[in-house]
Amino acid sequence: MNSFPDSIIQLIEAFSCFPGIGKKTAQRMAFYVLKSPSNIASQLSQSVINMKSKIRFCSICNGITENDPCNICSNVKRDQSSICIVEQASDVYTFEKTNSYHGVYHVLGGVLSPLDGVGPDDLSIKSLIGRVKPDYEVVIATNPSIEGEATSLYIARVLKEKSVKVTRLARGLPMGGDLEYLDEATLMRAMEGRTII
Amino acid sequence: MNSFPDSIIQLIEAFSCFPGIGKKTAQRMAFYVLKSPSNIASQLSQSVINMKSKIRFCSICNGITENDPCNICSNVKRDQSSICIVEQASDVYTFEKTNSYHGVYHVLGGVLSPLDGVGPDDLSIKSLIGRVKPDYEVVIATNPSIEGEATSLYIARVLKEKSVKVTRLARGLPMGGDLEYLDEATLMRAMEGRTII
Repeated sequence: MNSFPDSIIQLIEAFSCFPGIGKKTAQRMAFYVLKSPSNIASQLSQSVINMKSKIRFCSICNGITENDPCNICSNVKRDQSSICIVEQASDVYTFEKTNSYHGVYHVLGGVLSPLDGVGPDDLSIKSLIGRVKPDYEVVIATNPSIEGEATSLYIARVLKEKSVKVTRLARGLPMGGDLEYLDEATLMRAMEGRTII
Repeated sequence: MNSFPDSIIQLIEAFSCFPGIGKKTAQRMAFYVLKSPSNIASQLSQSVINMKSKIRFCSICNGITENDPCNICSNVKRDQSSICIVEQASDVYTFEKTNSYHGVYHVLGGVLSPLDGVGPDDLSIKSLIGRVKPDYEVVIATNPSIEGEATSLYIARVLKEKSVKVTRLARGLPMGGDLEYLDEATLMRAMEGRTII
């Protein structure tokens, strides 16, 4: 039995390491590279190296950036007294897309997860405490998961002595959702947080 | 609104060019590269370049290989008088995995498709005619699609004067299939091709 040439197998293996990319997709991707013109392949190859060398962490918010401090932290038009705390660097751009938040961010770099050995010292909580000044608002935007909730409560407790306003994202019905298919926990939160119209 | 740093956008765009990779998956892939150690990124980058430079087409079968002629064409244990015709280079390895065929291959590099402007001269049909000798068997293994059938008929007609045996893959029920969910065309072929047990 003959298998693919070695250099193709290597590339297929490199692609299969990606999350959500199985062996078949990796194979299709490798053959796509094979069929496409050389400049597409060298562009892909350079983009990978280029990104790895250019991207660094912002010394203020721990987000990803090419210039330190990042465009958001160094923007004087942004409200520096409102800090939105997110888990991952990519979450920053998820909020930016909504165009609804004009403060700055703080990227934790994960969530508290004792089972995975992630404690407060593994997250950028110390630098957060250093940034926060009295009368700031801290909006906690961790994911609505067990770990996200625990992290949110931990941060709220740590910030209590700094006399800042700590808020967190509203829980409730997602737009376009259907009551029939929503889980009990979400419905419970939606009922608890009901507002007057 | 702030968007991802430029070098990340570039990489996301490079990944989204792949077939079956949407914007969200490309974004997840770019962030995976960002989070993974530098050697993973440089390995991926090198694998792409490495493959593009090493892979060539076999001068006999038009398949992909690192050495010309390829391992299959140069293997004296393989039956050189049986040529299996496939559409794509990757199809060769699909057959190799079954371990059921011990002849050699010929890669067309596509199928006849007048609508896309693909005619007989765009496929490696001339080199096929050059390879075929009397008493050879040619097994046509194009896909069971309209274009694959047309290509199969064309090749059979071209090879008629060479006094070779031209066969094609059996059509019928796929293993594990369910009669209830099979299309009429497949059932019709299965009925026409019924065999005595």
